[in-house]
Amino acid sequence: MASTLLRGRWVISDPAQLPDGGIVDNGAVAIEDDTITEVGGYETLKARFPDAKEIGSNAHIVIPGLVNAHDHGRGIQAHRLGMADDYLEPWLLDFWRAHPLDTHLDTLYCAIQQLKAGITTVVHSGYWRDWSKPEQEAADALEAYDEVGIRLSFAPLAIDQNTFVYQDDETFLESLPDEIANNIRGALEGMNPPPGYDWAEHTCALIEKYANHPRIQILFGPTGPEWCSRPLLEKSARLAKEMGVGIHAHCLESPIQRDFFQRTYGQCGVAYLRDCGLLGPKTALAHCTWFGEEDIAICAETGTSVCHNASSNLRLRNGIAPVARMLELGVNVGIGMDSFSLNSDDDMLREMRLVENIHHMPKGGVAYEPCPSGADVFRMATLGGAKASTFDAEIGALLTGRQADAVLIDYEALSKPYLDPRVTPHDAILRLANASHVDTVMVAGELLVVGGVYQRQDEAAIARRLAELAEQEPAEHLKRFFEAVGPARPYVAAFFEKNYGRSDVAPYYTVNSSR
Amino acid sequence: MASTLLRGRWVISDPAQLPDGGIVDNGAVAIEDDTITEVGGYETLKARFPDAKEIGSNAHIVIPGLVNAHDHGRGIQAHRLGMADDYLEPWLLDFWRAHPLDTHLDTLYCAIQQLKAGITTVVHSGYWRDWSKPEQEAADALEAYDEVGIRLSFAPLAIDQNTFVYQDDETFLESLPDEIANNIRGALEGMNPPPGYDWAEHTCALIEKYANHPRIQILFGPTGPEWCSRPLLEKSARLAKEMGVGIHAHCLESPIQRDFFQRTYGQCGVAYLRDCGLLGPKTALAHCTWFGEEDIAICAETGTSVCHNASSNLRLRNGIAPVARMLELGVNVGIGMDSFSLNSDDDMLREMRLVENIHHMPKGGVAYEPCPSGADVFRMATLGGAKASTFDAEIGALLTGRQADAVLIDYEALSKPYLDPRVTPHDAILRLANASHVDTVMVAGELLVVGGVYQRQDEAAIARRLAELAEQEPAEHLKRFFEAVGPARPYVAAFFEKNYGRSDVAPYYTVNSSR
Repeated sequence: MASTLLRGRWVISDPAQLPDGGIVDNGAVAIEDDTITEVGGYETLKARFPDAKEIGSNAHIVIPGLVNAHDHGRGIQAHRLGMADDYLEPWLLDFWRAHPLDTHLDTLYCAIQQLKAGITTVVHSGYWRDWSKPEQEAADALEAYDEVGIRLSFAPLAIDQNTFVYQDDETFLESLPDEIANNIRGALEGMNPPPGYDWAEHTCALIEKYANHPRIQILFGPTGPEWCSRPLLEKSARLAKEMGVGIHAHCLESPIQRDFFQRTYGQCGVAYLRDCGLLGPKTALAHCTWFGEEDIAICAETGTSVCHNASSNLRLRNGIAPVARMLELGVNVGIGMDSFSLNSDDDMLREMRLVENIHHMPKGGVAYEPCPSGADVFRMATLGGAKASTFDAEIGALLTGRQADAVLIDYEALSKPYLDPRVTPHDAILRLANASHVDTVMVAGELLVVGGVYQRQDEAAIARRLAELAEQEPAEHLKRFFEAVGPARPYVAAFFEKNYGRSDVAPYYTVNSSR
Repeated sequence: MASTLLRGRWVISDPAQLPDGGIVDNGAVAIEDDTITEVGGYETLKARFPDAKEIGSNAHIVIPGLVNAHDHGRGIQAHRLGMADDYLEPWLLDFWRAHPLDTHLDTLYCAIQQLKAGITTVVHSGYWRDWSKPEQEAADALEAYDEVGIRLSFAPLAIDQNTFVYQDDETFLESLPDEIANNIRGALEGMNPPPGYDWAEHTCALIEKYANHPRIQILFGPTGPEWCSRPLLEKSARLAKEMGVGIHAHCLESPIQRDFFQRTYGQCGVAYLRDCGLLGPKTALAHCTWFGEEDIAICAETGTSVCHNASSNLRLRNGIAPVARMLELGVNVGIGMDSFSLNSDDDMLREMRLVENIHHMPKGGVAYEPCPSGADVFRMATLGGAKASTFDAEIGALLTGRQADAVLIDYEALSKPYLDPRVTPHDAILRLANASHVDTVMVAGELLVVGGVYQRQDEAAIARRLAELAEQEPAEHLKRFFEAVGPARPYVAAFFEKNYGRSDVAPYYTVNSSR
């Protein structure tokens, strides 16, 4: 059965087989409802399904929908809100007090941009703009993704410690001048969630609500081990196992976090998470920039995924995750944009190119040379993300029985003014494509982008309304909190300056030398 | 006097003063012929020059034209010709035998793309597609740049050794199997320049020919110290001094080159060039990825410029130049794209963003933290490049008396869907702009791009003709050479594998750690 045929000069069907296989020349993907029923030569499938609606042409490349394996769903991103990049830790304080956009509209806008960039699945790592309304925030974001029609793994926020620095909140507040501390204590009262709110109950309720949703699944979302107590981490692990869902957390994003774990627990970050029961094939850890050998080995052993955020790690001065070594040891790696891509444009194709290039380590005079191939990067952006999202074998490839999540790349535009015809389709995409070459995007069999235009809603009207609301003053309790917290920033920076000095490193990657 | 007013919501007049000055709010640039006659408030200049033609609006940002401080003038770039990226040294052999495009048309197309990206000055490091016709190749490229109207520093190729590896050609050829060596020897005969051709006479003749050209100047172009004998380097230095022109060379692009210098001359690369007399304020060195402390210190002492090629250095696995340290020691740095930007699109604004971000080194547990600010990057792309190009104070800023090389950025498009109005204009550009936001480009007072469209010629017709010619077979002597040289590639790779192993490094930048 097939009501639709997606046709291309090439169909990149199975990224697992790249670069030596997995591509059908002059191919087609047969689709019935939300499912791929067959993949093969265009002529053959056309003869078999003559009445199927034909989409694409000999001037397109059909690829599996891309998976953004770590994101926060921000449509109007930090730079547009006036936030400068900085080291992660003090920057987080800026982030907590960023202009609070309307969650529903901002998520709508973000999901549309991602679709238009060829992303069909996003892993949303939750945070609440307004801490006093976690259930409303989650509902607003989830409804927006559902309206847009993108596939979604959603991890609601779970967090219970170290709001300002990697130290107990009250200890830190006591170290501040009294006026600043008291202002923050007062403002924090307005930020409390409703009495009786429980992150675990909230997550479990969402899991049940979305249990039969065709495109949305809920993950446990312990933010990261710096911000979560051991009981919270253990409870997340236990409940995720009981309910059969995945886990998505941040891990070892900064070198300070690496030192924090060594110092606080006498073990590396990933060993600590393993001991909390948090690891396994349904767990994905985002960033992992400061993974050492032991961290990588434990991920490999437990089947835990890594979500690599190349742009974000550069922008927030966290370095370059040792992805070459992760792949070498067999760790599954996806690519995330963290709502923080280099150009603030959610262009996943450009992000893939950045990923390919920043692991290109030099030869001669250096310690470590392997690097991910273009095929590896293509796999990371599809199958790697599919596993990290826990949609696993439902998506990530164009194979019979998988969900019909696919993208048509405009090969004709890509090959202007000239492209040597011997360049393989995946090389052409990795080397040259960007979001402007995304012609058609299908999720679960539905055409959500056609000719580069999002179909379900009026994108321009959403953007206008979002910009209008961005001009408005925040609610009184938020404004009070932002104003109270601002003066703490230099003390946050000083805390890390004082407590986290230079320590011993042995880089995987060597990019230059003073000798 | 002023026949033209360039108007903007902001005029970024003097990058030297960023971020605390150098910007005129609601400003204008008054221009007569090719020169800036005044910069100031729009209302004032409008009252003074009521009849001047007004270009721009309150929805534009006026900036100095960008300087691409190291390029090779390739319009259809390596990826479009089917060349994969690799380590520099074996890749160079691919480059020598790349499909030879028509030099005139390819340079035309390239110069147009650069203009449309906001580049008003390019430093062209010469190479000949057809080694047997150096004078024709130089003339074709120079005429193309002149036709387009972009400002140009042109360094004709000078090279006399180590064609294949960092070793005497005949010694290397003798190490190859006889058949391969003999084929190459035979093919090389067809690649010889005409009898009596002399690189120095050629360069001197071009210097005289272009002595009074309003936009073009000629530099001496010893390719790089690996490929140039000491007599060639010394002669370049002597003649450049005699004729009062600058010098443009490659230097320490790869770690292998660093080891080559230490081993061959017992000194660092830049000390060797200093001893050849090659350094000084009119000399620029491209790449400099493997500069150590001594190399940087000598550049600072002698006033020698560095042209930083961030994309190219990632793509060809050369690492990240220690630009943070160069700036700290007072070295002038420009930004080049090397016809090899990450996205093969000559988008200098995106390149600036990459430059800003790849030097963002982590804090805590690491050796080196300073990094170039956004203002530094803006200066590198304007004033830094101006010095490296040796146009010096003629360009690089919008100040009275300088050449009228300016770009209008479409602020309205940049600020969609929302941009916090407190974001400064240079931050807005550095964080968000790309070539699509370049509205108007002026070089020497002439409007070459209007509304994003190149004005002097039919760009589409040039692109079509270029693509047609790319399909043609190369000339017989070239084809013979490409075919002869291909089988040598594994031997080139093996030469470097065998002779350049791991050596001692002490990185400036620490991006991750195995511990």
